[in-house]
Amino acid sequence: MTARTKIEESPEALVERIALAGRAAQRVLALMSDAQKAEALRAAAEALRQDEPAILAANARDVATAEANGLSAAMLDRLRLDPARMAGIADAVAQVAALPDPVGQVIDTAERPNGLRLSRVRVPIGLIGIIYESRPNVTADAAALCLRSGNAVLLRGGSEAVHSNRAIHAAMVRGLVAHGVPAEAAQLVPTQDRAVVGAMLTAAGLIDMIVPRGGKSLVARVQADARVPVLAHLDGICHTYLHSAADPAMARAIVRNAKLRRTGVCGAMETLLIDTNFPAATAVVGDLLDAGCELRGDARARALDPRVLPASANDWDCEYLDAILSVAVVDGLDAALDHIARHSSHHTDAIVTGDAEVADRFLNEVDSAIVMVNASSQFADGGEFGLGAEIGIATGRLHARGPVALEGLTTYKWLVRGTGQVRP
Amino acid sequence: MTARTKIEESPEALVERIALAGRAAQRVLALMSDAQKAEALRAAAEALRQDEPAILAANARDVATAEANGLSAAMLDRLRLDPARMAGIADAVAQVAALPDPVGQVIDTAERPNGLRLSRVRVPIGLIGIIYESRPNVTADAAALCLRSGNAVLLRGGSEAVHSNRAIHAAMVRGLVAHGVPAEAAQLVPTQDRAVVGAMLTAAGLIDMIVPRGGKSLVARVQADARVPVLAHLDGICHTYLHSAADPAMARAIVRNAKLRRTGVCGAMETLLIDTNFPAATAVVGDLLDAGCELRGDARARALDPRVLPASANDWDCEYLDAILSVAVVDGLDAALDHIARHSSHHTDAIVTGDAEVADRFLNEVDSAIVMVNASSQFADGGEFGLGAEIGIATGRLHARGPVALEGLTTYKWLVRGTGQVRP
Repeated sequence: MTARTKIEESPEALVERIALAGRAAQRVLALMSDAQKAEALRAAAEALRQDEPAILAANARDVATAEANGLSAAMLDRLRLDPARMAGIADAVAQVAALPDPVGQVIDTAERPNGLRLSRVRVPIGLIGIIYESRPNVTADAAALCLRSGNAVLLRGGSEAVHSNRAIHAAMVRGLVAHGVPAEAAQLVPTQDRAVVGAMLTAAGLIDMIVPRGGKSLVARVQADARVPVLAHLDGICHTYLHSAADPAMARAIVRNAKLRRTGVCGAMETLLIDTNFPAATAVVGDLLDAGCELRGDARARALDPRVLPASANDWDCEYLDAILSVAVVDGLDAALDHIARHSSHHTDAIVTGDAEVADRFLNEVDSAIVMVNASSQFADGGEFGLGAEIGIATGRLHARGPVALEGLTTYKWLVRGTGQVRP
Repeated sequence: MTARTKIEESPEALVERIALAGRAAQRVLALMSDAQKAEALRAAAEALRQDEPAILAANARDVATAEANGLSAAMLDRLRLDPARMAGIADAVAQVAALPDPVGQVIDTAERPNGLRLSRVRVPIGLIGIIYESRPNVTADAAALCLRSGNAVLLRGGSEAVHSNRAIHAAMVRGLVAHGVPAEAAQLVPTQDRAVVGAMLTAAGLIDMIVPRGGKSLVARVQADARVPVLAHLDGICHTYLHSAADPAMARAIVRNAKLRRTGVCGAMETLLIDTNFPAATAVVGDLLDAGCELRGDARARALDPRVLPASANDWDCEYLDAILSVAVVDGLDAALDHIARHSSHHTDAIVTGDAEVADRFLNEVDSAIVMVNASSQFADGGEFGLGAEIGIATGRLHARGPVALEGLTTYKWLVRGTGQVRP
């Protein structure tokens, strides 16, 4: 409550004040040219490089506090910056500056029999609220993506990273303002009062979209409480199905990569489905066990190797984000589709098969944001898809699905050009 | 409570049961071909024609009850069916059958340097909930649009129209089932218990999108209570700005049409902004007054004609849906843009001008779903835009904006075709 007393306004009044300032700044940003926005972001990247010593010093304060508070090693790793990470943050901002501006792109056009000429053009969404945890790089990444697409942004990072975020934000704003972007276009929420998050989530009409970036509990809380539209993903329970006609060597390589390249990413495979007629099941399972992966299987999977542990009912709905994998043996494509329909989180699901008809049925019938044939699910990533950067991967069904980058941060308007038409 | 006792299940259990049945039916529908879906909808249209006597008899029961209950003349008019309206309902279903199927359309494709081939294809959203009031035609329109785009639908109409809706629904389902569409793909909610609406609004994960169709209080309630994404529009506070370079004859024709062609539609003009240098202001105002339109103006508008009444502050934010118009005289384009930014509901705003540069600035700077030059705002309609039909006009910013038809009832998925790629 100290913070709230200090600023002498309610969380709702604070959010209204900064949101209205953000919306006013967005209207200025919306009229800036592509070249101006890109130049301002390049200046922000340069300011981040210039301020590296100050940012690292601020980060050291945050890390010391976090260590004294006994934060986990994983959280400390997310929080900690070093010169290499700082270079990565500045480079990412410069890369976003180099992406094509989605604003003004014409989606489609039509001419009506009465002579009215219609076009749909991309426009910014407006004011985006980002609610995130301990990673300071989100401050720079999210601000760059929002501004590149003509949106203003309210950044509400975790209290662990408060000094790091302030230093990163100060550097970026210095670069942006030097090139005509109003400072209020990218605002850091000026208090860590948790009630401000609740006020952001309910600020319908003031904030146009909320993007939560962080663990499952943060995203679930945002989805439960928000009155503002939310772009988010919850789980990545990704399946790989080895069809009977899968090439064994390809299957082994894809399975190892999909599970073990990085186990903590949302595109990592969490369940392996092996067709009862796939000829190299023992080898696939052996590869993973030899690499130190824990396998939890149904009865037929356990029969493949005595090291496979028994799976419980929960295992089929579990996102391990670790070197653990559930494994089931299934009787053909339909059984695999049924399992995926029941247990997938609709993030990314893959098949390995040499049969083109089976591949087409899988692509057609699996209802996930990303459906893959003969590739590792770890490719589920905006950069790998050629989008340049991503604000996140959406598992909701509306607005945008899968990797979301600049296009997903825009909406459109209809332009109608007439010559005096009135409606009969 | 009678209805609830009779069906012996809670509103939440009822919604879960019918939603799961709808989702299962949607998976069948998703695999039907374009031709099959079109044929089933044509059969539904034919069944509506065959059942006209039964539907009109059911409607007569609803109308008699409504008259006994003292419903307003406007509500009775929305409820009442006659042979002409019945023909219109069946024709609309047949027209939706003739529209191109959006499902399977390829939005874009890409090939990555590693050989992965990406495509984004349109897929149905899933299960759509429609919550509407006394118009029985919504039962047929909404079901046809949802099914044409591969979605299952839960229809929850008003209690005034319960017999009409049941008769329309029974006819359609007979035609659909005869061509392989599961009956559960288009379900009428089997009770008028109001708690069921609340259960639908909170059925996240079971219902993918809610579309409210009806008055402002219905839409506001849905937006306030829904945990499921909502596609809706609240107000149509549409402006027309007569620029100094507007052709006087064109301006007079557009203003009369935008206000008076039909005053009850959401695209009707509600505020007229007249540039202080527009030369025919007195004629424009006189036209409307002579036609019986009430004008409420600021001081300068009142000086144009003594019949103009004084406007109060509320008038600038009022959707009259009647032969009433607020009128302000403004000093140039920037003043008009400021007024619109402050008071528009972001539905449709229009300018009349002969100056191409001014037109471009207006198109660029007005942040509304539809922005028009030299045309009547009453063209704001899916049919007029060539979309064939519309489920509504969205004034939200995400997913779809302006007239929403079949494309707005789809989402997309990413298909990734590889040849064994693993991520480095």
